[in-house]
Amino acid sequence: MPEFMDVHRGMLGITPEQLLEAHNADLAIQDDEKVDFKHAWGDPTTGTVFCLSEAPDAGAVKRIHERSGHPADEVYEVPVQA
Amino acid sequence: MPEFMDVHRGMLGITPEQLLEAHNADLAIQDDEKVDFKHAWGDPTTGTVFCLSEAPDAGAVKRIHERSGHPADEVYEVPVQA
Repeated sequence: MPEFMDVHRGMLGITPEQLLEAHNADLAIQDDEKVDFKHAWGDPTTGTVFCLSEAPDAGAVKRIHERSGHPADEVYEVPVQA
Repeated sequence: MPEFMDVHRGMLGITPEQLLEAHNADLAIQDDEKVDFKHAWGDPTTGTVFCLSEAPDAGAVKRIHERSGHPADEVYEVPVQA
């Protein structure tokens, strides 16, 4: 299954509780699109959040994030890893 | 130790071999700045690469990437995770 890194901007001051809530909202519906959100990293100072997932395609990642209320600003397929 | 996600742009068409070479160039000198590069994800289509690291501060991450020939375009401290 392809892997994706997506980026959210503008989440200034995000707290651990808020990130967990957002992540759990994704997990609750991710099976609808066969997405598996694996980890999320947040920088409260710049409001930037990165999410790593496995998914059939980038559209599936986008749709889950949109439905759970935090659309991604960028989604990258990351087949090259080290 | 704080964790960081940094982003490189413009690495269009990056191959697994090129990413591994770049990653290994970081690993070879990272101890100089007490940085630990943990993983790198690359999207050859957009030329975007993400690196996850532990480091004393963002400056240490930047300096290692600069010295190994691939300066980061953005470095984010990511203390909030899920």
